[in-house]
Amino acid sequence: MYLYNFFNSSTSYRVRIALALKGLDYQHHGINIRIGEQSSMDYMRINPSKGVPVLITDDEQTLSQSMAIIDYLDKTHPIPRLIPADNMDRSRVLELANVIACDMHPVNNLRILGYLKKEFGISDEQKNDWYQHWINEGFTAVETLLTRHGHGSYCFGEQPTLADCCLVPQVANALRFGCDLSTFPKVLAVYEHCQQQPAFQQAAPDQQPDYMN
Amino acid sequence: MYLYNFFNSSTSYRVRIALALKGLDYQHHGINIRIGEQSSMDYMRINPSKGVPVLITDDEQTLSQSMAIIDYLDKTHPIPRLIPADNMDRSRVLELANVIACDMHPVNNLRILGYLKKEFGISDEQKNDWYQHWINEGFTAVETLLTRHGHGSYCFGEQPTLADCCLVPQVANALRFGCDLSTFPKVLAVYEHCQQQPAFQQAAPDQQPDYMN
Repeated sequence: MYLYNFFNSSTSYRVRIALALKGLDYQHHGINIRIGEQSSMDYMRINPSKGVPVLITDDEQTLSQSMAIIDYLDKTHPIPRLIPADNMDRSRVLELANVIACDMHPVNNLRILGYLKKEFGISDEQKNDWYQHWINEGFTAVETLLTRHGHGSYCFGEQPTLADCCLVPQVANALRFGCDLSTFPKVLAVYEHCQQQPAFQQAAPDQQPDYMN
Repeated sequence: MYLYNFFNSSTSYRVRIALALKGLDYQHHGINIRIGEQSSMDYMRINPSKGVPVLITDDEQTLSQSMAIIDYLDKTHPIPRLIPADNMDRSRVLELANVIACDMHPVNNLRILGYLKKEFGISDEQKNDWYQHWINEGFTAVETLLTRHGHGSYCFGEQPTLADCCLVPQVANALRFGCDLSTFPKVLAVYEHCQQQPAFQQAAPDQQPDYMN
């Protein structure tokens, strides 16, 4: 398999965690979204959404969207399962993962922050307020879901799931932006537990071949 | 089952389409997100994300996030299946659905447009430019995915899937905002086909008990 990704992209990081948890080898191809490589004509042929990650499967299918990619990996390489088969356990994992994937990440990613600065001319302070606002809204929901349904060292029990694949990059991103997450102790506890695990360490931005300081 | 939703919310509309396609009865509870009912203390106890839709299942589980809800319905009421079981068909459905659910809808929904107006003081023209920009970016990707992998009257074949549940509300929303979608003929063809089907008609905003002109 072949993964187009960027070391610091949260959605790329999600997929790298899933690959590492399943012990799957792949070729890493860095796409530098800071300098717009995702908008080149060559790359747009690969992904018309102009985003990372994209997985090229062993049978040469080109698949975009991190949530679809992780579902694909879970179907084709089901050990360990990251999306439980059992109905309500499954639903809780998907619910929490989608709070991050639909409500949090999309509004704070690079293309959005870039538009706000370029087209609306917002200041750095306004950008930080925007970023912090959606982090607070989202992690307030995640903290409540973990309080109600979470248990164990990971989001749900003692095995990592898709929820952890989404949570860790989102926390890392928020910490990088200097957000205070102390009001989300359960979110931080899961993050810190995951950071101790080899698969999560292997998937981290600073372990990638395209890492830049 | 019991559905907290708003007639004009795209994510509510997705779930209503899924319920109608499966022929499932439910009680409709309108939450008026235009006047902030989703932020009341009572509703935040139901959904800490302060959003619609929320499904209360027959065994009284409270489940948020439209993508998790439709997956739940597909597992518990699998006829007709909206997310195929077969790997690559499944992945194509999830890929297209997530372009809409992760890249398009989150950046153009009411809470985002509200923040842009209130905090950044953008004009109506700037709001329309923002809206149209993300519609164009997203539907360019969807149109390409339909060209590569789509076939038949729906997004993928002659049976509706999760992809159609996501596409129809997003097109309806864009048309309501006055967007010109003529450069996306495949998107429009799927939309128009769906609009002829009773389940999609039944789920439409103007058929809901909380509909307001």
